[in-house]
Amino acid sequence: MKKVILTGDRPTGRLHIGHYVGSLRQRIQLQNSGEFDEIYIMIADAQALTDNAENPEKVRQNIVEVALDYLSCGIDPEKSTILIQSQIPELFELTAYYMNLVTVSRLQRNPTVKAEIQMRNFEASIPVGFLAYPVSQAADITAFKATTVPVGEDQQPMLEQTREIVRKFNSIYGETLVEPEILLPDNKACLRLPGTDGKAKMSKSLNNAIYLADSEEEVRQKVMGMFTDPNHIRVTDPGRVEGNPVFTYLDAFCRDEHFERYLPEYKNLDEMKAHYTRGGLGDVKVKKFLNAVLQEELEPIRRRRKEFERDIPYVYEILRKGTEAAREVAARTLAEVKKAMKINYFDDFSLINEYTNKINR
Amino acid sequence: MKKVILTGDRPTGRLHIGHYVGSLRQRIQLQNSGEFDEIYIMIADAQALTDNAENPEKVRQNIVEVALDYLSCGIDPEKSTILIQSQIPELFELTAYYMNLVTVSRLQRNPTVKAEIQMRNFEASIPVGFLAYPVSQAADITAFKATTVPVGEDQQPMLEQTREIVRKFNSIYGETLVEPEILLPDNKACLRLPGTDGKAKMSKSLNNAIYLADSEEEVRQKVMGMFTDPNHIRVTDPGRVEGNPVFTYLDAFCRDEHFERYLPEYKNLDEMKAHYTRGGLGDVKVKKFLNAVLQEELEPIRRRRKEFERDIPYVYEILRKGTEAAREVAARTLAEVKKAMKINYFDDFSLINEYTNKINR
Repeated sequence: MKKVILTGDRPTGRLHIGHYVGSLRQRIQLQNSGEFDEIYIMIADAQALTDNAENPEKVRQNIVEVALDYLSCGIDPEKSTILIQSQIPELFELTAYYMNLVTVSRLQRNPTVKAEIQMRNFEASIPVGFLAYPVSQAADITAFKATTVPVGEDQQPMLEQTREIVRKFNSIYGETLVEPEILLPDNKACLRLPGTDGKAKMSKSLNNAIYLADSEEEVRQKVMGMFTDPNHIRVTDPGRVEGNPVFTYLDAFCRDEHFERYLPEYKNLDEMKAHYTRGGLGDVKVKKFLNAVLQEELEPIRRRRKEFERDIPYVYEILRKGTEAAREVAARTLAEVKKAMKINYFDDFSLINEYTNKINR
Repeated sequence: MKKVILTGDRPTGRLHIGHYVGSLRQRIQLQNSGEFDEIYIMIADAQALTDNAENPEKVRQNIVEVALDYLSCGIDPEKSTILIQSQIPELFELTAYYMNLVTVSRLQRNPTVKAEIQMRNFEASIPVGFLAYPVSQAADITAFKATTVPVGEDQQPMLEQTREIVRKFNSIYGETLVEPEILLPDNKACLRLPGTDGKAKMSKSLNNAIYLADSEEEVRQKVMGMFTDPNHIRVTDPGRVEGNPVFTYLDAFCRDEHFERYLPEYKNLDEMKAHYTRGGLGDVKVKKFLNAVLQEELEPIRRRRKEFERDIPYVYEILRKGTEAAREVAARTLAEVKKAMKINYFDDFSLINEYTNKINR
């Protein structure tokens, strides 16, 4: 069986380094591993609209931003297919049929949906489209017959929903859809990067995110302004590394070679953490080191972004071609789905023959 | 503005005389009135699947049955467009976007949905697709820019839901969709015909329906076996006409001329009812009269059905052509919807230009 990846992002803002360590970096590795036959990376604009229906312009503008982020990070359109969800009508048709296989209470029990509803303060006024987005995700995943879905642990219930839909569909209509497996990130520190203020999540509204598109100076300022251990007041004070976002970022980004290059007095992060913990290591020094590490990782991304920004029609063309190729695959799956459900009335004439025979009997 | 009708049926069984007096008869009148520019009659198979997902074969088989019922009643494919819902992908796309404009609690408060849920004993296990079917109806109605939706009074909340979606869509994205009006049946007796057993609804499972496709003998047997007033035991007993389905059917079907032809001792139904009420008129005589009246109405329908049954490929071709024509209209509306939402990224190049300008600013 072919090994196929589906992954993607909602285009509701530029991507930040949380996205990068949480998924983008791994995607590039998977893409370049050569282990997968097909990789689909979806800009989930239709999904973004489920809770941004009143603000479609935000979603629209961020499609190009996210595409630029993908390309600058090293997503290669020759190896990965980048597609825009809303431009693939087949996904909506699949969603509609899967919606008949899932109960309302099943969706309401989904822990990811529950958490997202709470985060958005939706309470009783959840848009139907938002409640149903796990079903739409099942359509996205199965349309491309994805075998592998690389997502964070918090998305596990979403994938379980897809697997349930696949099993139910196949049991009613016959073996048609592929049951996907989750691929969790290996580095625990990468699961979720906190904001620069130490808050749980990077977000535009909290102004606590470092974006892939940020300039060198923006990154430096954000790093130097980061929240650390509030009790680490003088250099000599002992400091805490747990819950200290500067060290969480280092966990996610720094390798031993960075110490050789920028701070040879430590062999590795453990030595530096030990020094910070016992006292005598100032925040400024740690932040300067983090800045050097981050700049090294972000500089080539930023450079590629500038190149792509100079040719937006080319980026557009990548999106158009990717979407077109993806649509062909989704259309094939939908044809199989409709055939299995026997609702492809105009593709074959069996219904005519069956009926004619019935009449003549 | 053009006057456009949308109406239709779920293909879950052959149509019966309840459908005929409740909607079909009026549709033929509307069709032949010449007052409407376009008439769309939808075989709502996708909607039928929302609560028949495990039994798609039932839905499939009944598509031809319902089409035959339409044509035999006098739906003229030259004047009315008969379409199969599932074969118009645009409807699913519209549904998806409208789902973002309606809250879950709004749907759960819909009295028609509530009643249908109760009728089907769904309780907590309502399929998402079933809960969302009022949204899918909004897609059907607006796709064809219907101005007029002829339905029973019980469907009023469904139409109100469509009107709400239209208003919300137009207020967010700009004037695009047409707000439809309900067209209620004029004859109160036609709102809902009871079953032959006097129970509230005709249904296959209760075996209390008279089908348009029933043979002359089947109709006669069903009429002669009808429930009447249980206290009207001897001919001389006074009888009740209220809640007596034989008289309800006569209310819906008989005209003064029927008395001239079949029972000239009465001038009209009022005289007959008066005789039945004061006593002295037997049930058999009333039923024989009803049978004559019904046979007169059903005979030409039955004859046309036989003709169409002899050429199922032709019926199929009517469905294919109607669906194709309807799809073109729905595609135009969807294009307008996507343009209004500005998610027609590949149709214009404004996004490229806007972004390029932004970069160069």
